[in-house]
Amino acid sequence: MSEALLIDELRAVVGERGVVVDANDLENYNVDWRHMFKGRARCAVLPRSTSEVAQVVRLCAGKGISIVPYGGNTGLSGGATPDGSGSQVVLSLARMNAIRDIDALGETMEVEAGCILQTAQEAATQAGLMLPISLAAEGSARIGGLLSTNAGGTNVLRYGMSRTRVLGLEVVTADGEIVSGLRRLRKDNAGYDWKQLFIGAEGTLGIITAAVLQLAPQSCHRVTALLAVPTPDAALKVLRAARQHIGETLNAFELMSGAALELVARHQGLKTPLAASEWFVLVEASSCLAGLRDAVEGLFATVLEEGDATDGVIAESERQEGELWLLRESITEAESREGRSLKHDVSVPIAGIPAFLREADAAVAQAFPGSRVNAFGHAGDGNIHYNVIVSPAADGHALNMLVHDLVVRHGGSISAEHGIGQYRVSELQRCRAPSELRLAGRIKRALDPAGTMNPGKVMPLISQAD
Amino acid sequence: MSEALLIDELRAVVGERGVVVDANDLENYNVDWRHMFKGRARCAVLPRSTSEVAQVVRLCAGKGISIVPYGGNTGLSGGATPDGSGSQVVLSLARMNAIRDIDALGETMEVEAGCILQTAQEAATQAGLMLPISLAAEGSARIGGLLSTNAGGTNVLRYGMSRTRVLGLEVVTADGEIVSGLRRLRKDNAGYDWKQLFIGAEGTLGIITAAVLQLAPQSCHRVTALLAVPTPDAALKVLRAARQHIGETLNAFELMSGAALELVARHQGLKTPLAASEWFVLVEASSCLAGLRDAVEGLFATVLEEGDATDGVIAESERQEGELWLLRESITEAESREGRSLKHDVSVPIAGIPAFLREADAAVAQAFPGSRVNAFGHAGDGNIHYNVIVSPAADGHALNMLVHDLVVRHGGSISAEHGIGQYRVSELQRCRAPSELRLAGRIKRALDPAGTMNPGKVMPLISQAD
Repeated sequence: MSEALLIDELRAVVGERGVVVDANDLENYNVDWRHMFKGRARCAVLPRSTSEVAQVVRLCAGKGISIVPYGGNTGLSGGATPDGSGSQVVLSLARMNAIRDIDALGETMEVEAGCILQTAQEAATQAGLMLPISLAAEGSARIGGLLSTNAGGTNVLRYGMSRTRVLGLEVVTADGEIVSGLRRLRKDNAGYDWKQLFIGAEGTLGIITAAVLQLAPQSCHRVTALLAVPTPDAALKVLRAARQHIGETLNAFELMSGAALELVARHQGLKTPLAASEWFVLVEASSCLAGLRDAVEGLFATVLEEGDATDGVIAESERQEGELWLLRESITEAESREGRSLKHDVSVPIAGIPAFLREADAAVAQAFPGSRVNAFGHAGDGNIHYNVIVSPAADGHALNMLVHDLVVRHGGSISAEHGIGQYRVSELQRCRAPSELRLAGRIKRALDPAGTMNPGKVMPLISQAD
Repeated sequence: MSEALLIDELRAVVGERGVVVDANDLENYNVDWRHMFKGRARCAVLPRSTSEVAQVVRLCAGKGISIVPYGGNTGLSGGATPDGSGSQVVLSLARMNAIRDIDALGETMEVEAGCILQTAQEAATQAGLMLPISLAAEGSARIGGLLSTNAGGTNVLRYGMSRTRVLGLEVVTADGEIVSGLRRLRKDNAGYDWKQLFIGAEGTLGIITAAVLQLAPQSCHRVTALLAVPTPDAALKVLRAARQHIGETLNAFELMSGAALELVARHQGLKTPLAASEWFVLVEASSCLAGLRDAVEGLFATVLEEGDATDGVIAESERQEGELWLLRESITEAESREGRSLKHDVSVPIAGIPAFLREADAAVAQAFPGSRVNAFGHAGDGNIHYNVIVSPAADGHALNMLVHDLVVRHGGSISAEHGIGQYRVSELQRCRAPSELRLAGRIKRALDPAGTMNPGKVMPLISQAD
């Protein structure tokens, strides 16, 4: 086929400016933002409407051309980066960024896939509500990518993963059909809940073009606190007490090692407002009920008395709240300045966190002498970012396998919130049961029989015969 | 094939007492509890383990015999009732009722499909937690059926549908393979979240054999209140105010017409503790934070001052709480004593409730003179039980279509929480977009290519060619 003809046909759908072919302009689409994955796109296409998405998909499907859906390019697993063949079309949702509707009474928002999370958050706030998806990349991440990866973040403990926000979904399937289920319903048991398939599928089953999201009421009061705790076991006792004292108001429960905060002090000059400790937890709660502050103070008294915490501070201003959160948010950056680090975004059952950390630390120390563990994360969700700072010569794959094997032994997941993309495909094949992988393969073949939707992501390129 | 041979083979798997063939004993399996649907089972099989379920499914699949999964037989749509052919095997999970594990720190429970909801609730309570699935049939409904139908209930507003409780799932697929994903993880983005497919599929894609459920902390204080409101519009203003005042503590927000409570007074002798009103709302909230009662009183003051409520009462004891809830829970029974009623378990966007009620009432009055509407339900979720008391001669199907057409026009669902079963198959086909139905068909064919899993439920018997 003539390449020029394909480009002309695409331009006829999305307009002259909707097709990117210039090599320099394509760099944004060829490389992920951390420069960990590099591919080569045939071109990038930017439709302006769901109908245009469907036309592009049909056009490509008719020619057997693969499509890589592309949001804000903030993913950590290379899910939106094309392969190196130069044959794949990147389909960016960036020009579909409208907030179609906010329903304050129903607490819903209908939004297109290309809308940036922060824009959607701000619109919700202006309507007197909030959109409780919050993560570091919120200034760039787009709704379609967030839903396609079932994004996590810092308030999953209270509000759940992105999946739980989705009331309605509009998708374009692999054969270019528009399927619209943009209902604003909290309850809908009429037939299969097919939208669940596309959430978290990383664009391998179809393309999310719009969604109805469930918003939440705003909170009137917020309390942010930092506690020093002697051990991860103690941290979990604090978590249990927090769930009992301030249950439904608990937004976040973040575990940080003392070593992690030393890195933050060394590289970013940020000082922890408590004396040195092996571990710290950052707690945030919010409510409109008076008495939240008292309840947090009651929690403090309990855990200090029990010896589960040795020290603590409650932020007295929004500035202090920001300073506490900045400690947590600076860990990744500080780690990257410290040297080469190998990251593991894993989850284990909450009660298993201390044993997992003990065993992993021992195994890593033995197999990789001189390495240093930097563990932190959303302990309230069982999600640990188990990162290891290693020498340039260290065998990264061997370390990944060592950590993941321990995760599996503890009944955990090798990807808690970052997805699989192209980064963890082989590890997922290694770590997950064949019966689950076979089931996934059946789903893939049913919805993408030609295998043109983001091939090679989440699962290996699969044979169509089975 | 010899029938005796089949029974022998099944007995070899599940034991002598695990196969029911006696015609009298089969009545429980042939008829739903409301006696609305009647079929004829070939036999009923009661496996004792997941492995036995898989063996039974393989045995039947090998002979092309269809299976109807069966839980507590509390469904309202005939999803667990076999067809009249006498060829279908009913597979009851009743003997798989163990609570395998409760993890208090992780707030999880692993439970087999046949466990009765109330048993699971009590076990959670004993562990200092709660299982927040609550509905009228909780003394009989079993976990597998609740998850297969994505059951709703009275605290969906706060805790979500049953789907949101499921962290892990174990299923037996249509070809008799065990797929186990019994992970206790709040975050797991490693590959497709296949468990979502089986939740709410009403046994048409496979059989749920066990689950890991997410529990919740117990509340220390609870406030239950009844408010008289002049109109549904006013009720929604009260809802908005409640979300703002007591947001995350709001368990239930139930709308009841004055006419519904008159039925309850007439047939059950239960008196509403407020003067007559066109509408009432029942509000329940709970928390461990002090100040909940004050916040509810603040809410009362606000809505009374605004004129959105005209009167109100807060229960002062557990007995009074029970009395308020009994009013709500008695509506269905009172309705049935009043005469023939046609039920519609529908949802619409919350803001659309008043217009939907106005339009439906007018249309019903015009088309069915002499009929009386009995509308009530989970207004905080947009879920209205729009029931109409009609003469014995009324054309039920015409009335169903009239109501459902209005639901569709308002962007609603013809089954909010009761599922489709065999009851609403043709209405779902009529009311939902062809593109959605086609997608559902692809999912069905992929997971149940032979069409032996609960055929004719959720969707019509489908051709295997497509």
